[in-house]
Amino acid sequence: MSRFAYVNGRYRPQRDACVNIEDRGYQFADGIYEVIHIHDGRFVDTDLHLARLARSLREIAIPAPMDDASLLVVLREVVRRNRVHEGIVYMQITRGVARRDHAFPKSVPPSLVVTARHGHPFPRDIASWAGIAITVPDIRWGRCDIKTINLLPNCLAKQRAREAGAYEAILIDRSGHITEGASTTVWAVDANGILRTRHLDDYILPGCTRAALTALLRDSAIPFEERGLTEAEFRDAREVFLTSATSFVKPIVAVDGVPIANGLPGPITTRLFTLFTRHADGVAHNAAPRLASATGIG
Amino acid sequence: MSRFAYVNGRYRPQRDACVNIEDRGYQFADGIYEVIHIHDGRFVDTDLHLARLARSLREIAIPAPMDDASLLVVLREVVRRNRVHEGIVYMQITRGVARRDHAFPKSVPPSLVVTARHGHPFPRDIASWAGIAITVPDIRWGRCDIKTINLLPNCLAKQRAREAGAYEAILIDRSGHITEGASTTVWAVDANGILRTRHLDDYILPGCTRAALTALLRDSAIPFEERGLTEAEFRDAREVFLTSATSFVKPIVAVDGVPIANGLPGPITTRLFTLFTRHADGVAHNAAPRLASATGIG
Repeated sequence: MSRFAYVNGRYRPQRDACVNIEDRGYQFADGIYEVIHIHDGRFVDTDLHLARLARSLREIAIPAPMDDASLLVVLREVVRRNRVHEGIVYMQITRGVARRDHAFPKSVPPSLVVTARHGHPFPRDIASWAGIAITVPDIRWGRCDIKTINLLPNCLAKQRAREAGAYEAILIDRSGHITEGASTTVWAVDANGILRTRHLDDYILPGCTRAALTALLRDSAIPFEERGLTEAEFRDAREVFLTSATSFVKPIVAVDGVPIANGLPGPITTRLFTLFTRHADGVAHNAAPRLASATGIG
Repeated sequence: MSRFAYVNGRYRPQRDACVNIEDRGYQFADGIYEVIHIHDGRFVDTDLHLARLARSLREIAIPAPMDDASLLVVLREVVRRNRVHEGIVYMQITRGVARRDHAFPKSVPPSLVVTARHGHPFPRDIASWAGIAITVPDIRWGRCDIKTINLLPNCLAKQRAREAGAYEAILIDRSGHITEGASTTVWAVDANGILRTRHLDDYILPGCTRAALTALLRDSAIPFEERGLTEAEFRDAREVFLTSATSFVKPIVAVDGVPIANGLPGPITTRLFTLFTRHADGVAHNAAPRLASATGIG
């Protein structure tokens, strides 16, 4: 089936969908993006993703190409034309087309590109969803909280993971702390049984799945702290898992070739996998709470 | 006059020149670029730029789209079609078009885009070429030695300069050292009269104009060290100037609103401005030595 994309006001077959070579996204990585998971024909955590999109635009001073309601119409139309029931919708906004010059152009409309594609349904069996990871140095820039298309360092890290037969590359910063994965949030149950993920600051992306899970954790009895792990604490962890719109809750059972605990998804990971499955199913049936205001995104 | 661009084998009017939305340059900033100055109809420091282009490709494992001789044919044809006698030629190579996935695609041909445009001739009057700068924190990634299109941090810095009415934003790293400008190499004559520019490592671009000037310095009696300046040393400098293919030798006469020395281009800057003018004029008459092997680029 041919795929369709939205590019600056037009729906086009994706193979013919193009942008000008002087689009600042192409020459300067001057743009941002979002990915929303589609489950059972509905968007998961839409409010969180649109709030983060708005924040990313604000942080680098790109005007929104349209309001959220109009954007949702475009997203839904791209999903409809591609007949995606399980998968993702991808949107990218750049500062637009202008004669090449590092400083911002004046009065240029931003570019908006939207694509959608089929993906596997949410995993239901945690054992077969488990994966392994490697660690690599975090050499990214100082504003990883903005979801920009400056993704070459992430690509290089992910490629190293791929070459090692691993699902993800987990990044360790210059101070010896875990930041996040190349495209995921990193979580661990430490040696004391406390579930931990790094606090939000300029160096990691405020994950939407992270935010949804954090909200769900409030009603659980699981001890939880937003506090980053040192490399030593991480290697001592009882459980490790990743989250993202496309990784869902992904158990990591070995890091750099060394099994985590007994090399099987742990009890807290399993519980959160189930909790998040219910959340996603609930979203698909319009029963999920509106989380954006409660999570610090936006 | 309409401008022409080369895009993956075709010469196109620039307003119609486009790349697919899944070009990895657009979605991941997965690509590199070069800019060569054209003076009196000829390319300045071509060998240095082509050596650096090859190095950039190698460092991120993108295959060269063609050999140097073929690339030069394309560059010259784009310059010819745009009738550029004084100006620049710009080339960008990305990993190509592939279904979005952070890790590298297999067997995808790289994309090559080439544009050219008119610019002012080399400045002949140093006083009118002088400019001012601001300083901003260097928040870029850890491989700024590769000339990639991950340029959003550079754009944000340059925009701050523009808003302050300055020519350049000079970057200060977390350890309090000057790295480089948003798109230039930074040089200073320190309080002891020694000309200094930062040593090459992963955190700055090995500038081609820097390399050409360093080679020219060998035959001068100017005391010179490749050693970075602390912010305090920089603010105490007797002279400051910038270099790049488009900035030439650019005197900076004030930083953050404070004049450098007496606020006029200094004697060493003036001498190097003249030396480099002769070099560029010599290149234009095919008399320049081949510098690439002597400069650590490539």
